[in-house]
Order: sequence, then C-alpha cells, then structure tokens
Amino acid sequence: MYKMERVDGGVCAAKGFYANGVSIGLKPNNGKDMAFVHSDTLCSVASLFTTNKMTAAPIRHFRAKGEFQTNFVLINAKNANAMTGSAGIADIDEVLEAASQKFPQIANPVMSSTGVIGVRLPKAKLIAGLELLDLGVRDGDAASRAIMTTDTFPKTIAYEVTLNDGSSFRIGAMAKGAGMINPAMATMLCFITTDAAVDAPTMQLILDETVATTFNAASVDGDTSTNDTVLLLANGKSGAFDHAAFKEALHGIMLHLAKQMVKDGEGATKLVTYRVTGAENNREAEIAAKALADSLLMKTALFGEDPNWGRVASTIGASGVLCSEEYLTISFDDVCVYRKGEILFDVEAEALAAAVMQLPEFTIHCDLGLQEGSFTAYGCDLGHEYVKINADYRT
Amino acid sequence: MYKMERVDGGVCAAKGFYANGVSIGLKPNNGKDMAFVHSDTLCSVASLFTTNKMTAAPIRHFRAKGEFQTNFVLINAKNANAMTGSAGIADIDEVLEAASQKFPQIANPVMSSTGVIGVRLPKAKLIAGLELLDLGVRDGDAASRAIMTTDTFPKTIAYEVTLNDGSSFRIGAMAKGAGMINPAMATMLCFITTDAAVDAPTMQLILDETVATTFNAASVDGDTSTNDTVLLLANGKSGAFDHAAFKEALHGIMLHLAKQMVKDGEGATKLVTYRVTGAENNREAEIAAKALADSLLMKTALFGEDPNWGRVASTIGASGVLCSEEYLTISFDDVCVYRKGEILFDVEAEALAAAVMQLPEFTIHCDLGLQEGSFTAYGCDLGHEYVKINADYRT
Repeated sequence: MYKMERVDGGVCAAKGFYANGVSIGLKPNNGKDMAFVHSDTLCSVASLFTTNKMTAAPIRHFRAKGEFQTNFVLINAKNANAMTGSAGIADIDEVLEAASQKFPQIANPVMSSTGVIGVRLPKAKLIAGLELLDLGVRDGDAASRAIMTTDTFPKTIAYEVTLNDGSSFRIGAMAKGAGMINPAMATMLCFITTDAAVDAPTMQLILDETVATTFNAASVDGDTSTNDTVLLLANGKSGAFDHAAFKEALHGIMLHLAKQMVKDGEGATKLVTYRVTGAENNREAEIAAKALADSLLMKTALFGEDPNWGRVASTIGASGVLCSEEYLTISFDDVCVYRKGEILFDVEAEALAAAVMQLPEFTIHCDLGLQEGSFTAYGCDLGHEYVKINADYRT
Repeated sequence: MYKMERVDGGVCAAKGFYANGVSIGLKPNNGKDMAFVHSDTLCSVASLFTTNKMTAAPIRHFRAKGEFQTNFVLINAKNANAMTGSAGIADIDEVLEAASQKFPQIANPVMSSTGVIGVRLPKAKLIAGLELLDLGVRDGDAASRAIMTTDTFPKTIAYEVTLNDGSSFRIGAMAKGAGMINPAMATMLCFITTDAAVDAPTMQLILDETVATTFNAASVDGDTSTNDTVLLLANGKSGAFDHAAFKEALHGIMLHLAKQMVKDGEGATKLVTYRVTGAENNREAEIAAKALADSLLMKTALFGEDPNWGRVASTIGASGVLCSEEYLTISFDDVCVYRKGEILFDVEAEALAAAVMQLPEFTIHCDLGLQEGSFTAYGCDLGHEYVKINADYRT
C-alpha cells in the first residue's frame, strides 16, 4: 500500500529539478514565451509524440538521438518549427549548441516547440534569450505560463507518493493544450518530472499504458497537431519506486491535465464526460465515446445547453458501432431521457436535463445494452469563441 | 453522342411527374412543410440510405417493402420520425393508409421525413393536410421549398438529354441539405425523377457509382443523420435511354445538388474545392481530401479568410495517408505557397493567397507528389452562424 498527496511545485516538485519561464519577445506585451526544465543529474527519458505524418522539427531532432539520457529541455511558444525541413533541424542544433556553450553542465539537450506552422524558428531571439536563463531557479509556475499559447490558465500538478516502507518519491508536470486537442494522441505539450528510481523501459511501458485512458480520451476539436509531445524525465534521486504506486500517480497526473486541457479548449465553457457502457467490447465503446466527444452537433448543442438526446443517439448510430434503439439508454447525469425504445423526455425530464446541461461539468451516459464494453471520453462545447480564436489565429 | 440542356421544372420536368408543397402547420408562419412527388404511372425505384445504425422509421418502412414499384412519395419537414420504434412505423402506415383512401390512384406509397429526432410524427396534422393536396399540380419549386429545414434556398435542377437518334428523356431533382452533411453518405433528402426508359437494376448500379464522387464527396460538419435518403424514380414515359448519357446527366444533377448543399451548409459563406493529387492511390487521396473538408481548424481558417497553409499540411499529415513535407505542394487557386520543402509564402504570395480566400468559391490544391491517386472533395467554412443555428436548433 501507499499514500498519494497533492503537493505544490509542478515540474520542480521532485528533487533536483529546476525550471523557469522568461520573456524573449515572441509573445506581445512581454509575455513569458521560453521555458526550460533542468535536472542537476542525468535523467532517464520516456516519450510520446504526435501521430501526424508532418512531424515538426523538434520531434524529428529528438528521435534522431536514439536512446539517451538528458538533463535539459528548452521550450518555446509562438513558433512550431514545423514544415521547416532540414533548415528547421539546423536551427535547433544552433540554438542548443549556444545553450551548451553558456551552460557547460547540460548534456544531450532537447527542444520542444508550439505555435504557428511553416515559419522558421526565430533563433536569434532564442539564442539572445538564453542570457535570461538561470538554471538554479525553481519556478514551475513561470515555466507553465511560458509554454501557453491560446490557453487561458496554466496547467500544473504534482504528487508525493509515500510507500509502505516510509520511502517516498515525487512526480510533477506541466502541460499546454487548447485547440487541436484530439484523441489520436491529445495534441499538446506535457513535461513530467520525477525523482522516482525508475528505468527508461519501465517508465515507457507505464506511459504507453496510461495515455490511452487519459490524453487519448480527451478531445477539443478532432485535429492532431504536428508537435504533440509528452516527455517524462526521471533522475532517480529519491531512491524510491513502486510499480503500482508510480502508475497510479502518473495516471492521476495525466488524467488531471487531460481534463484541464479539455476544460480550457478554445472557447469551451463546459467539460463533459461521455461514459459509454454495454458496448460489444471496449474498442466499440471507445469509438462511440470519442464520436460523441468529437461531434460538432453535440458540441454546439452543449454550447446551447440543449438536452438534445436525439443527437446523442444519432451520433452513436453514425459512429458505426453495433447498437440498436431497442437496447439503448441515455442519461444526462441522473436524468434518464430514453430507455430501451421508450422516450422518457416529458416536460419534467426535459426541465431536469436542461438544468444538468447548465452545469460546468456533467456526464452523458449511454448504455448500449449489449455486452460489457465500456470507455470514458472527455469533451467540451464549441462556442463563438472557438470560431473567433481560430478564424484570427495567425493575426 | 448526345446533347444535354438545363431545363426548368425540377422534379416535374420529366413527363408524367407531379409535385407540390403545402403548409400543414408544422413550420411557423405558414411555411410549406409537406410535399408529394407523384407519377401518373408506376415507377421503377433506386435508392440510397444513411449508414447511421439508428435508421429512421421511414427508411425502415421503405426497406421492409423489398422490391416494388411506386407512384407516390409523401415528404414532411420538422419531424424526422427517428428513435420512435415500432410506433414510428405504425404512424407511417396510418398516414399512408389515409392517403391511399383519399387518392385511389396511388400504389405502394412511401414516406420520407426530416427534422427533430425522438418526437412522434404529428400524424393528425399530416392526415388533415392530405386534404390540401392536388395530385394534378406540377409545382417542383413549391415541393422543393416544403422539404427545407435550415436550408436558406431551395435546391432543384433538371436536364433534357437528346440522343443521336433524335429521341430524348428528362431527369430532374430536388434536395435539401444544410447541417449534418457528411461524406459517409451526404446527409440529406434528394428526390430524382426521370422519364428515361431504364430498369431498376441498371438505375441502382448507376446511382451507386455516381454517389461516391458527388454526395459522398461533400461535407458540412462530418455528422451523418438518421434520415439520409436518395430516391430515384423512373416511369419510362419518354421511351428513350442511353447508359452513358443517363450516367452523365445523373452525375451532373447530383454534383450540382451536392455543391449547392455545401454552399448552403449551416452558416457557410464559402464553397471550397479540395483537390488532392499525387497520392499513393485514389483511396488515400479521398481520405486526405475529406480530412481537409472536415477539419474544424480548416473551416475556421476559411471563415477568417486566413491563408493558413500550415493547417493544410498539418491536416493532411494527421489524416494518416502516406505523405512527406519534401514532396508536398500546396496552392490556393493558382497561388503556390509551398513546394516540395520550400516555403514560398512571402509577403506577395500571402497577399495573393489572402485575396483568393476572399472569393466565395475557390480551390485548395494539394499535390502529395508520390503517385497518381486523386480525389476532389467539397467543403465549406464554419462561422458564427453554424454555432448559433445548432445551439438553438430545437427551440
């Protein structure tokens, strides 16, 4: 057994980790736009990247390194360094070479970028900005603000896990989301640090298992970006580790950040949990739940706070999973509006369901009534702000 | 060889066909909301229906008839008769039985419905409304208005085809679209009538071939409704037929209506043609082209008239087709902004591309530079009106 407690500090909560965010002139109004994560000893690395074939330069740069340990990640906002070809890779080499000269203690540095696609990295500004970095600072909050693009709030979380033998480790993270969040690998940057004594293969295995029900269950708009990245760095400084405890902590962190990202989806005002049960199998439940989270008609109905259960049924039917109106049951939180062929949507139920839809968070539960398959996905509404943000994004 | 000419009349253009639209109190302000299509002799029938598993009652009713000939279709707006179980089927039987009693000349009548899901058909109003029908009226325009829901303009078209031997036939159609238009079978109602001398199996074959590059290439919002229907009725009265001519005419009619539906997508202000060439094969080109037409980020960029070519590249990359930035070329009409790894998006190109995006209709061409696979899809932008219409749809 073990004990899990929320602690402060985000990516700096674990022993030996440092981070900060500074302003180097990429964002207007002196917004923080460059961050680093540093460990004072080398870290094992686990990673997850976008499935987009037009992979951004920082990801190609990372992958080219093969297996390695590192102690330094440089992150910039406002420029994705995507569709920039070999010049984009050379730009990264140049920036990281300058970082290595300024900070002799860093080894195998890597980069991560988010922002506009198809524009060369403003490397002069990044190199000049290195002068503002102090690797001895532990300001996880400043770092989490520097990686934001259209996010409206920073996203960090950390846990301390105490094992039965009294030993303990910490794991903390920061993430950015907003827009382009998609189940094919929730599009975002996420940096997780831990002082747990865990090796790279074990960490990668646990990360792979955890992503399916967390980031990959979250959807804002069904698009998958060129830059999605999750990096998990472990420096082993606590000397403590337990497989189950580490997995639960990592799952808690990733689910929290996934939900925060959906909640902060561009223009979103609601976080909706789509619970599909009774499907032919888990895969079918996942298809149906994600179809609901991705549906434009569902998203606009949520925004209008309209308990339009017919769209729920239609979306499940359109998803292609085995289903039938005679076995389907649909509820908004505890308000059942349709049960196995019977329309329960009278004036009273409509009023109750409409009240549920006015909540900032609620669950739409669809029981397909067939077998035991189940999955939970997370979605948001789509309102005028989404259109406004994305119509004007580059300007 | 043959000659094709546009003619007036819509579904009444062909010999022996009658249609009208009347107001029976389903729409506010005495809007027309019930229509019929009638032929004075029996017709061969070809049909296409939604792939949505929650198939609406009128489609299940139609399918239960097996092979048959008919001369009467009754269509209502404002109520989809979907998710209404066996009661929904019984309601149709009751309405059509009343129609048969009033009009002894009709045989094997069928129904088609569009509107809100999950509410019983207002059959008393429909039965009372039969009194307003006169099967001798030929008003294709009134019929096309009665089947509209959120459409902003009626959609009709007709051709006269004159064959080499001097014989001729006509083919005409009406459709409703707007919202819920999706490539999995463009969601809509479409009724096509012809006096060509064509048998049912031939007609079905040609219809199946034609839908892939017309209705199934059109997308408004990626959702597939419970009620999609294409009915093609042929009464043979012209005595004329030619396979190639009929196919070309049907293709012309369906492509025209598909584009009209996209153009009239809920809140849409632009009709965009996505031409993908150089793909590994036609199937891959289709996946990429439809991904572009469906992408929320593309749709909002279109609405913002922002030539954000990075989103084009990212969407193709996310679609999963074989592609690489070194081989990709992207143009907005004739303005090339990216060619095989080279960013051509200078100030001048940006101004030219921005001017293209201000047009009501234009083409985004993506050459993947690999093999010969190609496909053309049709999409629209997504603006504030889409959100407004769908947030408030039921009310």
